[in-house]
Amino acid sequence: MTVMNYRITLAYDGTNYFGWQWQIGQPTIQGVLQDVLAKLAGEPVTSVAAGRTDTGVHAAGQVVSFRLAKEWDGVALRKALNGNLPEDIRVLDAALAGAEFHARFDTQGKTYRYQLYTDEVMSPFWARYAWHYPWALDVARLVSDSKTLLGTHDFTALTVADCEVKTRIRTVTDIRVEQDGPLLTLWFVGDGFLRYQVRTMVAALLEANRGRLKAGSLSTLLASRDRTLVGAPAPARGLTLIKVEY
Amino acid sequence: MTVMNYRITLAYDGTNYFGWQWQIGQPTIQGVLQDVLAKLAGEPVTSVAAGRTDTGVHAAGQVVSFRLAKEWDGVALRKALNGNLPEDIRVLDAALAGAEFHARFDTQGKTYRYQLYTDEVMSPFWARYAWHYPWALDVARLVSDSKTLLGTHDFTALTVADCEVKTRIRTVTDIRVEQDGPLLTLWFVGDGFLRYQVRTMVAALLEANRGRLKAGSLSTLLASRDRTLVGAPAPARGLTLIKVEY
Repeated sequence: MTVMNYRITLAYDGTNYFGWQWQIGQPTIQGVLQDVLAKLAGEPVTSVAAGRTDTGVHAAGQVVSFRLAKEWDGVALRKALNGNLPEDIRVLDAALAGAEFHARFDTQGKTYRYQLYTDEVMSPFWARYAWHYPWALDVARLVSDSKTLLGTHDFTALTVADCEVKTRIRTVTDIRVEQDGPLLTLWFVGDGFLRYQVRTMVAALLEANRGRLKAGSLSTLLASRDRTLVGAPAPARGLTLIKVEY
Repeated sequence: MTVMNYRITLAYDGTNYFGWQWQIGQPTIQGVLQDVLAKLAGEPVTSVAAGRTDTGVHAAGQVVSFRLAKEWDGVALRKALNGNLPEDIRVLDAALAGAEFHARFDTQGKTYRYQLYTDEVMSPFWARYAWHYPWALDVARLVSDSKTLLGTHDFTALTVADCEVKTRIRTVTDIRVEQDGPLLTLWFVGDGFLRYQVRTMVAALLEANRGRLKAGSLSTLLASRDRTLVGAPAPARGLTLIKVEY
């Protein structure tokens, strides 16, 4: 039997999900998607995502691969999936992929966005998509501090303590800061990010901004490889996986 | 006993509410607000809103007035209310008002916004705040058609059949159309709007855009005063009360 390999681009509002990864008894993006795929395929289907987003994290351009026995036209597959998925998970694009394409192992780079809402009173329209941060913020300092995180570093100090990966060395190629009224947006581009890395970088940048960084400076923090020097990661709701490059 | 009159500005995501107006056994904005006011005041408090938004309609600048026996500092009142209100209802501003101020009767004008999301696949981030309208749209025609609705007219053809008001004559002073990628935004400014009027104007403009207006033209439609000539109002989720003028 020929088996076809597919690649889809997903957008989702992560508010109501326990992240990407399938978990018994909890709503997850992978769980919901695989239920729909099983319904279409008549058998269980395993899917792989470029980034295993955590509880409450959103995606505007998550990439997922899976295999189906049937040959589907991309548009027909997209429509069949969207017809069965809930409104907060949408397939933006579906297409047949090369036999060897793997959404996780083949990634070359990722872009994440972190949004802060800085007015004193939180907007109910941003409550799901931004962290309410009504405290004093020195945007020029945020921009200059962010440059310290650029380049290739061991990011042990900025991930979870139990991050089990071969190497904690990653390259951050770009960080941009944009201000649009009360909305402050940070863009992070890199070859890949460790678990909680973007949210912990945001937390560290804001601690530095308030002059409260235990390590004194971000470069000392990076060099320390000590995860206990930064507080909790910034809340999940502000984070969105925007784009994956292959 | 002196009684103080207060004026607050409210923002709310109307998705989870049966509109502004108090209803027995249903969550409404007025119901939730009055529960909080009663808790602060230790007695029932009646509130009046500038616009009685319908089920699912949002507000970024609703104005509400109510009386309290106690004198409150505006900032303290705002914080006390926000501390007790759910995240999807926020008091942006609170202040003591003149003794005679009435949020509904004193309005001089209102601005509403209606949002359409025009990509083929709906974005999960706009699902609560825009109508998914993936069909062909002639924006130039939308702009020119909208001018027909400007000015003072009897809007009977563009409200609900059982709209019980003294007069159905209203003045629309401005309609603007803005396009930003897949998001198409219509702004409506007027001295006041009848129930469902903005959403029915949107429905009529889009019927005209598809060449499907039963009345042939918007001016014939207005002149007909016949509510049966336009289909259902555009969905509530796309509508937001932006601003109220006094």
